[in-house]
Amino acid sequence: MEVDLQRKVENLLARYVHALDDDRLEAWPDFFAEKGLYRITTAENFERNLPLSIIFADSRAMLRDRVAALRHANIYEAQRYRHSVSSTLVERVGPDSVRAISNFHVARIMHTGETVLFATGRYLDRIRFGGGAAQFEEKIVVLDSRSVDTLLAIPL
Amino acid sequence: MEVDLQRKVENLLARYVHALDDDRLEAWPDFFAEKGLYRITTAENFERNLPLSIIFADSRAMLRDRVAALRHANIYEAQRYRHSVSSTLVERVGPDSVRAISNFHVARIMHTGETVLFATGRYLDRIRFGGGAAQFEEKIVVLDSRSVDTLLAIPL
Amino acid sequence: MEVDLQRKVENLLARYVHALDDDRLEAWPDFFAEKGLYRITTAENFERNLPLSIIFADSRAMLRDRVAALRHANIYEAQRYRHSVSSTLVERVGPDSVRAISNFHVARIMHTGETVLFATGRYLDRIRFGGGAAQFEEKIVVLDSRSVDTLLAIPL
Repeated sequence: MEVDLQRKVENLLARYVHALDDDRLEAWPDFFAEKGLYRITTAENFERNLPLSIIFADSRAMLRDRVAALRHANIYEAQRYRHSVSSTLVERVGPDSVRAISNFHVARIMHTGETVLFATGRYLDRIRFGGGAAQFEEKIVVLDSRSVDTLLAIPL
Repeated sequence: MEVDLQRKVENLLARYVHALDDDRLEAWPDFFAEKGLYRITTAENFERNLPLSIIFADSRAMLRDRVAALRHANIYEAQRYRHSVSSTLVERVGPDSVRAISNFHVARIMHTGETVLFATGRYLDRIRFGGGAAQFEEKIVVLDSRSVDTLLAIPL
Repeated sequence: MEVDLQRKVENLLARYVHALDDDRLEAWPDFFAEKGLYRITTAENFERNLPLSIIFADSRAMLRDRVAALRHANIYEAQRYRHSVSSTLVERVGPDSVRAISNFHVARIMHTGETVLFATGRYLDRIRFGGGAAQFEEKIVVLDSRSVDTLLAIPL
């Protein structure tokens, strides 16, 4: 357990969720490596090793396309999100590479003001630190609930 | 990103929310500088630069008055609060002064036992460390929801 | 406030809640000292110094019995939990012993997908670090709500 490494991971995660919660979606793809993998799945599918994903992207370009689609559809602006990320465990897997597991709770705040606990789950991240800013090489969002109809288009 | 500074900010925030959650309201004003600013507003007003506030105080004395009013009205005791603070980002702005942004989720627990996710949002803090205990020079509480009727009197 | 000690406590708490949230119940007793005390109570009882507990165990063996009972009753598997632990305050009380206070929010996710904010409260921990892995000598879970009917058998 290296204090600096832990702190760097927590800082990356904090900047990541503030970008989403502040509706700075255009900054979102830059948190990923160029060939970074981003996937949202459910705990049920993840545990059964099913390849089903709610969102799947394996490059920054695909994430940019998704942001463009979200902006075009005008969905994202109608509500706010507020992440709570905690219990981050970090494991070094290479000279400049770590794996990290975190818990999250995400609240959704509708335009009417109604607030609900919208999604909970784990971030399973592989992060690279070498040469410049830290980036996600892989970010798997494992949702606890399988009721994800309304999630379809939204980054977590 | 300095590890010690990050830790000091997180420690201040932790002591602050435990004071509120433990109903130690009389300790609350002491977390602020004598001329400290405390403001609760909504994200909608904050983004439009509207000066509207749900609570506004610009001195420790005003905060003490508010505590006295709350104790007199006997509102606060009827329910409990439980804060979750996370994703704190710290930026040094002077030799002994930082700005910090954090996310919060606050649960309210009624006397009946009913628990709801009551308020979410951001703390935008300016904190001074020099000479003695760390204190808030400025604490702006930006609520995600605009439904704040029941919030009127309660510190967050 | 020692950075390393704070980090060690947060790491122990993170590993603890991941074990529960991942349904690795068999690992749960090992977070405790052999004569470790585990107690779940309500804030109301705790503040009145009432000895009433929802769960009480004063050895690792008792915790193992509880896990066996839970597995036999097949209760735990029907739902998921997701902890959010924050605002941990650490105080050294001996050369290899600390007290720690943390806030928690726990979400419960039913098999149907429904997600609710299930329990909130404080962890009051006494932790021993000497000679091997950190362990809880005492863990008191103080629930904010007194509506705990459904909680009876579940570790928090």
